[in-house]
Amino acid sequence: MATKLLKAPLKLALIQLSSGADKAANLARARSKVLEATSQGANLVVLPECFNSPYGTKYFPKYAETLLPSPPTTEQSPSWHALADMAKEGKTYLVGGSIPEYWPETNKYYNTSLVFGPEGKLLATHRKVHLFDIDIPGKITFRESEVLSPGNKVTIVDLPEYGKIGVAICYDIRFPELATIAARKGAFLLLYPGAFNLTTGALHWELQARARAMDNQVYVGLCSPARDMEADYNAWGHSMIVDPNAGIMAQLEEKEDVVYADLETGRIEETRKGIPIYTQRRFDVYPDVSEHYEA
Amino acid sequence: MATKLLKAPLKLALIQLSSGADKAANLARARSKVLEATSQGANLVVLPECFNSPYGTKYFPKYAETLLPSPPTTEQSPSWHALADMAKEGKTYLVGGSIPEYWPETNKYYNTSLVFGPEGKLLATHRKVHLFDIDIPGKITFRESEVLSPGNKVTIVDLPEYGKIGVAICYDIRFPELATIAARKGAFLLLYPGAFNLTTGALHWELQARARAMDNQVYVGLCSPARDMEADYNAWGHSMIVDPNAGIMAQLEEKEDVVYADLETGRIEETRKGIPIYTQRRFDVYPDVSEHYEA
Repeated sequence: MATKLLKAPLKLALIQLSSGADKAANLARARSKVLEATSQGANLVVLPECFNSPYGTKYFPKYAETLLPSPPTTEQSPSWHALADMAKEGKTYLVGGSIPEYWPETNKYYNTSLVFGPEGKLLATHRKVHLFDIDIPGKITFRESEVLSPGNKVTIVDLPEYGKIGVAICYDIRFPELATIAARKGAFLLLYPGAFNLTTGALHWELQARARAMDNQVYVGLCSPARDMEADYNAWGHSMIVDPNAGIMAQLEEKEDVVYADLETGRIEETRKGIPIYTQRRFDVYPDVSEHYEA
Repeated sequence: MATKLLKAPLKLALIQLSSGADKAANLARARSKVLEATSQGANLVVLPECFNSPYGTKYFPKYAETLLPSPPTTEQSPSWHALADMAKEGKTYLVGGSIPEYWPETNKYYNTSLVFGPEGKLLATHRKVHLFDIDIPGKITFRESEVLSPGNKVTIVDLPEYGKIGVAICYDIRFPELATIAARKGAFLLLYPGAFNLTTGALHWELQARARAMDNQVYVGLCSPARDMEADYNAWGHSMIVDPNAGIMAQLEEKEDVVYADLETGRIEETRKGIPIYTQRRFDVYPDVSEHYEA
């Protein structure tokens, strides 16, 4: 039998972290929750977008850390080292949500996700490709691009025991090409640390998660910060894990909590055997967006 | 101000028709419902997939009609002429669901949608591109490809007073490229005559409609046959119209009925101004699947 996309059963944990203004406290809280998840058997743990800082353009420069050259010193990036340490301590793969990054040589800021392996080694970096610039009158206006610069790549990470995952950040989910490319290149899971808000969350959070799962027949996880109505930006919460048939496996409310799901080997293959869109696509009628992708 | 994608207000009607084994009766019933819809002010009326026949591979050859050369004679295609006449009589654009088509020169069958204008003129033909071959153990197995051949193009139809629409059939909706190309080439509405069943309907019917609307920020209409539990194939029903923000405007239950919605000029532009994914796509990071499309 051919190798499954997910090579071994995997317990996924998404930490809907409650963060505040104190970076050291945020890192300590993240560590505590990551170790709570690994004590429950999690093999892959995800933190939310901007887990080490408040979310907002005015906060990004203040909380930004320098990640290059890699590895950075502890002074350049306490969050890099905190993440490496908690991955190693918990012996887990860790998608470190995202943190504001500053690159002094170009004077640019990014919204950046760091992925570590169970030895504490950095496996991948994703810089948010699509910046969150929206303007819904009377509801919400936000312009990440006032401060941030965008990343320039699709991020696929190989977790040797399990298989490949696609990682992108929040607003990136609205651009299906990233998901499509990652899935067609063999990802079994798409992970999006993301802070939707009370407007866009109510409209599209669950729909985005389920649509990406359905169209790509892979697992999807969306990991939000906990909602804090005292903060400038009120995150939607509702971190959720969706199966390859677009069914919701588990979902949180808005408070701090951890959501788990056991991802099964063979589930993707079973889904694709039932509804075999993977062999039915008509790349003679339209192009394959993943065709020229090189890892 | 630039021209809107939808140039004039349009009342859309989807007819969730109850069809049976008698083709002449099906055509007469379709006419009656189309004229009911136009008497309510509908400017664009949609019939369901296989509205002139039962749905099933064993029925396709028996009910198939020859559409080429165009126009066919009344004997070659009574459905072609019935559709042309009802469009003209109702002074409406009409997406004639689909009918089984037979092309004698190649001995091939197709699942084919005919679109007529208010003068009774044929505007476009869409042959289902993705044939419905699925096998969900214990639930449903179906193989259109045992009898049918697939079409080979994306179908975009210009309705001069209103703008462009994308037309595809049922299982085609699972392949987002058709929707993406039609929307990026200026369609304001994607229409899918489609007969999902009790398994796939419960899983994905609403999710497909809302996902295509959300990702493309256009109106979407899905038009099902009415459910008939005496038939070989039990259609899901639930014909629905979704707005460019993925909100459900109107939806039927499973019985025969007509669903209407008033599509507003400017609604698409308002949606895209709020969440401007149309200007934020990163075709430097991934290709545009619509780039090489030629109408």
